[in-house]
Amino acid sequence: MDYQPLMNEVYKEVQEMDLHGQLADYIPELAGVNPRQFGMCLVDKTGKFYGVGDYETPFSIQSISKVFTLVMAYSKLERELWQRVNVEPSGNPFNSMVQLEYEQGIPRNPFINAGALVITDALISMYSDPKQDILDFVKTLSGDEHISVNQHVQQSEIDNSARNRALANFIRSFGNLHNNIDRLIDVYTYHCSIEMDCFQLAKSFLFFCNNGYSYFGDTNILSGRNTKRMNALMLTCGFYDEAGEFAYKVGLPGKSGVGGGIVAVLPGQFSVAVWSPALNEKGNSLKGIAALELLTTKLGVSLF
Amino acid sequence: MDYQPLMNEVYKEVQEMDLHGQLADYIPELAGVNPRQFGMCLVDKTGKFYGVGDYETPFSIQSISKVFTLVMAYSKLERELWQRVNVEPSGNPFNSMVQLEYEQGIPRNPFINAGALVITDALISMYSDPKQDILDFVKTLSGDEHISVNQHVQQSEIDNSARNRALANFIRSFGNLHNNIDRLIDVYTYHCSIEMDCFQLAKSFLFFCNNGYSYFGDTNILSGRNTKRMNALMLTCGFYDEAGEFAYKVGLPGKSGVGGGIVAVLPGQFSVAVWSPALNEKGNSLKGIAALELLTTKLGVSLF
Amino acid sequence: MDYQPLMNEVYKEVQEMDLHGQLADYIPELAGVNPRQFGMCLVDKTGKFYGVGDYETPFSIQSISKVFTLVMAYSKLERELWQRVNVEPSGNPFNSMVQLEYEQGIPRNPFINAGALVITDALISMYSDPKQDILDFVKTLSGDEHISVNQHVQQSEIDNSARNRALANFIRSFGNLHNNIDRLIDVYTYHCSIEMDCFQLAKSFLFFCNNGYSYFGDTNILSGRNTKRMNALMLTCGFYDEAGEFAYKVGLPGKSGVGGGIVAVLPGQFSVAVWSPALNEKGNSLKGIAALELLTTKLGVSLF
Amino acid sequence: MDYQPLMNEVYKEVQEMDLHGQLADYIPELAGVNPRQFGMCLVDKTGKFYGVGDYETPFSIQSISKVFTLVMAYSKLERELWQRVNVEPSGNPFNSMVQLEYEQGIPRNPFINAGALVITDALISMYSDPKQDILDFVKTLSGDEHISVNQHVQQSEIDNSARNRALANFIRSFGNLHNNIDRLIDVYTYHCSIEMDCFQLAKSFLFFCNNGYSYFGDTNILSGRNTKRMNALMLTCGFYDEAGEFAYKVGLPGKSGVGGGIVAVLPGQFSVAVWSPALNEKGNSLKGIAALELLTTKLGVSLF
Repeated sequence: MDYQPLMNEVYKEVQEMDLHGQLADYIPELAGVNPRQFGMCLVDKTGKFYGVGDYETPFSIQSISKVFTLVMAYSKLERELWQRVNVEPSGNPFNSMVQLEYEQGIPRNPFINAGALVITDALISMYSDPKQDILDFVKTLSGDEHISVNQHVQQSEIDNSARNRALANFIRSFGNLHNNIDRLIDVYTYHCSIEMDCFQLAKSFLFFCNNGYSYFGDTNILSGRNTKRMNALMLTCGFYDEAGEFAYKVGLPGKSGVGGGIVAVLPGQFSVAVWSPALNEKGNSLKGIAALELLTTKLGVSLF
Repeated sequence: MDYQPLMNEVYKEVQEMDLHGQLADYIPELAGVNPRQFGMCLVDKTGKFYGVGDYETPFSIQSISKVFTLVMAYSKLERELWQRVNVEPSGNPFNSMVQLEYEQGIPRNPFINAGALVITDALISMYSDPKQDILDFVKTLSGDEHISVNQHVQQSEIDNSARNRALANFIRSFGNLHNNIDRLIDVYTYHCSIEMDCFQLAKSFLFFCNNGYSYFGDTNILSGRNTKRMNALMLTCGFYDEAGEFAYKVGLPGKSGVGGGIVAVLPGQFSVAVWSPALNEKGNSLKGIAALELLTTKLGVSLF
Repeated sequence: MDYQPLMNEVYKEVQEMDLHGQLADYIPELAGVNPRQFGMCLVDKTGKFYGVGDYETPFSIQSISKVFTLVMAYSKLERELWQRVNVEPSGNPFNSMVQLEYEQGIPRNPFINAGALVITDALISMYSDPKQDILDFVKTLSGDEHISVNQHVQQSEIDNSARNRALANFIRSFGNLHNNIDRLIDVYTYHCSIEMDCFQLAKSFLFFCNNGYSYFGDTNILSGRNTKRMNALMLTCGFYDEAGEFAYKVGLPGKSGVGGGIVAVLPGQFSVAVWSPALNEKGNSLKGIAALELLTTKLGVSLF
Repeated sequence: MDYQPLMNEVYKEVQEMDLHGQLADYIPELAGVNPRQFGMCLVDKTGKFYGVGDYETPFSIQSISKVFTLVMAYSKLERELWQRVNVEPSGNPFNSMVQLEYEQGIPRNPFINAGALVITDALISMYSDPKQDILDFVKTLSGDEHISVNQHVQQSEIDNSARNRALANFIRSFGNLHNNIDRLIDVYTYHCSIEMDCFQLAKSFLFFCNNGYSYFGDTNILSGRNTKRMNALMLTCGFYDEAGEFAYKVGLPGKSGVGGGIVAVLPGQFSVAVWSPALNEKGNSLKGIAALELLTTKLGVSLF
């Protein structure tokens, strides 16, 4: 199937919607990007790709990186991992600290910051050079050596890491963090500061729709069964406090980041990445969600 | 496909697991049933059925009734409904009151008690005889006139309704409940006290896997698109605080009740109901979840 | 000592402060009063009184009535009462429902609504005509038969009782409420709707500074030791979420109501009531607090 | 008045009560002390002292040190300090993080850990050698050069500081902490690890009952008005989640520490320190509270 005409159509219609959101402002680097940028890229299961707009402009993947680190940890630890992180949606963001207290330092899921910090802590315990290994893993998945980390963004995140340090210390007080917190924050902000474009992102997620086989890395990342589990986890927990609404409207597993990127997959069919930095009040890309909703509606596809 | 051998196999393996949970004890009627009962029934999209064990023993459907009332309200109000109820997973149960306060009386989703009370309130505003209309709707869906309400169970629930009255009054204080609370509790406990067996339940949910067309009622209940949306909602919110884990392990949309029933659907393929009254600590049927996990694993099916 | 010149001076200085607060608006009757009204009345331990401004204008005593009902219940039940209500300050109002959940239906103290509902419930269990008995008790304490209940205010409170009904049902779900909730709300709103003027209020609180002996009722209300305990309770819990600040600024035990009244006592010396209906953001009378702070500063008195 | 016979009597009666609490166990040093130790010392306003039991055995003053740091900060910053810390009781301990979030990083009062960290941060900004200056201040107040810090205890506290680091980082994320967090934890754990005996503690608190004049330091620490304010603050917030009960039972301003010490004052009359390391479930010395309740009952004194 040739997705290009459809991609062009969706792109045009979303642009005409005249959507205006807010840039992420918690670090200066993210607040400085041009909010009008908008790109999309779909890669089908055979590796053919269809791009439109700014799909080759790199941006900060932020929380999307939590998927990569989760897969790295899960592929080694499997079910043992769930002793340290739960797999339940998290409810409203207001409660993050309460939930940690109520649930004795076990984060609700690997995609809230608390959970992603625990995952990163697990990687530090397993890898000798976790920063390099995470970056190499992303390069492998996307079949592209030209992926790098924006050091200005990372430095900004380190300079604004009080909340994450609060979470990390709180988790540690329950015995669920094992490594030095400065080191943890360094690795964590490093992978959040990876920059990729829509093309690279769509390629890197293709194994989620191919039963765990990475076409571009030519390797099996996860078993078919574990791949389904990761898809389930992205569907229920991948969009902060908008996971239910994304499932309801779009119906695909995926993950968003405050840099404005979203990547989603239709198992057996394709992966698709969209990017536009202006966010809705829940912290997800406004045009990104509109584009994915339109795309799945026009295609008549959904998990359900 | 003949599902009978598989159903028998799953039934036998689960029985051998020697699982022991707790009966729901908040009302005497539920605490008095025989915890060893266990039945399963699968109905394929053409209406053929495959039953095993106690699949023709009626039990209290409890929260599964929230799906029926939601579909009734949604089919009339469509997106207008979402002004009164949200579609997000709810986080841990501890926070129910806090979330209502934080979110100004808008329940997180239609399946937590707060949300189901609002849905019932909406039905009372729309129907002249809501109790009869709900029961008729369930009979139509399952193509079976022999479905009734257990009045002892209902009376017990009315006698133990302090928590639900607290929720209802709290929601009312935000202006999101319009009818008399005694009437609301009467209708709410009525539909929770409907009794069905696995065969009836599986039939009544079949429209969720047939794009909204009810084979047994011979009528369209929802549009294909809205059916997908309800499926998405069941997947993200249908299992109390175990929704993420159910999606992770089983990978199907569904709904559970504290009476020990679970009903799930694989869109385009089948609906399946299981029942066993002993519950795990999250309030879901212990054997029911084990059976569905085993069934989907053996079939190799999942949404993902 | 002749307190009149000082009362006049405080009155004049507060009037010149040009303070503007908000009227309580949760019921129409309270929102309709003239916000400029302001009166003060001090009664010394020998029964001599000193009034200024609108000190003979009756107003709705609201939460001040919780002191009367507490004293009635405590004088009969003594320490047994503390099995049903705690004596700790309550923290911010946001947490009222959470605290009840966390503390298993035992309200933090008798002056938050949850606690006052439990106290009223205890009175209903002990008295055959609790409404009349509460009113009679207040008349006795103030030595004045001309005290009545505003039925319009009470009806408004009944019509707006959803929050209190939510609390009452929630407490009941923990087994800490024994009487019919309609009856409870009737008695509770009745005593909140008592109207008194500053002179009557100051007289009714005089026993708190005379070791429990009521000069105007010519009777012992509480033992000296129990009187001290009630004073301690008013100091730590009498001013909603401003108890600490009131103790810090004024340094006297007392109780406020959203009708704009405040009554405070200096043990061994005097009781003093102030009233002005415009409230600060914590729900306490703006001029009332300013007047008491000024009065104690000029007198150089404080508990501390 | 000769308090010695009374002190002996109280000591004997408390010993006969056969009270058994738990030692603080969050650091090994506190868990290792002999739980049977018990001492009391009263110093009257003229400086005469009356001791009984282990009143000359030094112990870890822990949270009692928060009074010294608060007074140091308040004497310099006065009302400016209240922009960074509130003066309200804190409700149950479960909510500490929620309250900080709800109140935008402003701790409820200077005696909860969050507030004491902010006070210590303020001292670091004002003093060049805050550790030495705090210790010197305590020596001056007690007129005793032989007061020191237990370095083993401090090291243990540093090794177990995850919760306090979580709080500190959380407060910092709201902009209410200005100094390096390692430095903050160093100074904070230093003053918590000061060791004093009952005699020294009672002397050091004597200025609270002499309008701010320190008899042993022969200097004015606070104005009379500000002294009253500190007394009010100790009464409403000095005993963790037992402040209301302490005011109700004992009726004096004071402060407790998990080392088992309690010090209280009767303005104009005396200060009194008790110590016994076994704690009740709220974290206050079991024998200490019993002794103070008995003492004030026998003396017939109370603020109220």
